[in-house]
Amino acid sequence: MVMKVHASLMSPPALRVCAALYEKDLEFEFINVNVQSGENREEPVLAINPFGQIPAFEDGDLKLFESRAITRYIAHAYKDKGTPLICEGKPMATVGVWMEVEAHQFDPAATKLQCELVFKWMNGEAADAAVVEENEAKLAKVLDVYEARLSQSQYLGSDCFTLADLHHLPALTHLMGTPVKKLFDARPNVSAWVADIVARPAWAKVLARRCQR
Amino acid sequence: MVMKVHASLMSPPALRVCAALYEKDLEFEFINVNVQSGENREEPVLAINPFGQIPAFEDGDLKLFESRAITRYIAHAYKDKGTPLICEGKPMATVGVWMEVEAHQFDPAATKLQCELVFKWMNGEAADAAVVEENEAKLAKVLDVYEARLSQSQYLGSDCFTLADLHHLPALTHLMGTPVKKLFDARPNVSAWVADIVARPAWAKVLARRCQR
Ligand SMILES: N[C@@H](CCC(=O)N[C@@H](CS)C(=O)NCC(=O)O)C(=O)O
Ligand SMILES: N[C@@H](CCC(=O)N[C@@H](CS)C(=O)NCC(=O)O)C(=O)O
Repeated sequence: MVMKVHASLMSPPALRVCAALYEKDLEFEFINVNVQSGENREEPVLAINPFGQIPAFEDGDLKLFESRAITRYIAHAYKDKGTPLICEGKPMATVGVWMEVEAHQFDPAATKLQCELVFKWMNGEAADAAVVEENEAKLAKVLDVYEARLSQSQYLGSDCFTLADLHHLPALTHLMGTPVKKLFDARPNVSAWVADIVARPAWAKVLARRCQR
Repeated sequence: MVMKVHASLMSPPALRVCAALYEKDLEFEFINVNVQSGENREEPVLAINPFGQIPAFEDGDLKLFESRAITRYIAHAYKDKGTPLICEGKPMATVGVWMEVEAHQFDPAATKLQCELVFKWMNGEAADAAVVEENEAKLAKVLDVYEARLSQSQYLGSDCFTLADLHHLPALTHLMGTPVKKLFDARPNVSAWVADIVARPAWAKVLARRCQR
């Protein structure tokens, strides 16, 4: 039975899951959920995720939600397929640290900036300049730490590409099309890392899928 | 070499790490960090956590930060000691989902409520009623999902106590001493779960340590 992803190609957490599936060369069925019309708060999504959010995921009888739990599952359950995405043993603890950094340091600011500068723009709404300024300042501090980290390590969590990097892809791609790009451009190690990971073939497949729609 | 936890007994993420260490019956050195005077942004914390936050953790040469990455490490690296805290195989994916739920659904509201109703109160400051109201409404929705989940499963992530439950302990203990307690009391499965997990001997040891100071 092929895996199912209930998602939207506009949802950053949903794109994270698609990236992991393409990295692993796994077949999956993409079931589009229209968030604007509230399909996420109806069946079949609600039976998988009681919070009524996408992505929602099925692998046979196993039903999962929360993007980072889904990608961890994919990385562990299909560890012999495609890109490893995770390492075993002690270094895994360090990959785990940088996965938490993405979730608790990077993502809060990145999500607010995407909301103001990408999603509001798509809806023809004006960005709130104060929110943008506040979150640019927060993101800049996070990127200072990344700049130092990436001077010692090729990727955030380890010397190879892992989930700690992959989880950043949707926000990076969205923010590179906004004035926030300057925060990345000003930091050479961060810029090189962004250029490297957004160029991954698996990510190109995710974006190509979006363009077809 | 004994493990080291750089932390404060007032910090919810730091208490999470102590709870995991006591559940595992592991010896550790607790190094108090005074956040009010900014010790977290100095050595030795800064050399472990470039974001200058506590908890920061050392196990021999391995240096970790971010509370949930530290507890995961402890659960995996010391899996044969004390309480398991994690399960292997497919159910682990579901434990992972509920760990993400704690981090992304429960914690944002719980952290704001602790800040308004516990930490501001300790500093003799007034709570912001609008922030309290907004986050009580968010927390109530999360607890509705927990109530349904706990009618099917004895613990959030699985039928045994895991990190998915443990990560809630600091916020639960703090909020039970505030008017937010009513949100828990109104939900029988949630109340029984809270009563069960806050009564764990390992958690009592964490709280006893706090009372000594
Ligand atoms: N922490 C969740 C966030 C999921 C999320 O926020 N999904 C959004 C779409 S980007 C959603 O379903 N929003 C609709 C709603 O909350 O009603 C994850 O990583 O999966
Ligand atoms: N996501 C982090 C949060 C850590 C955190 O917020 N620590 C606070 C104490 S509760 C801190 O060090 N604050 C001082 C600061 O940010 O300057 C974790 O789970 O460890």
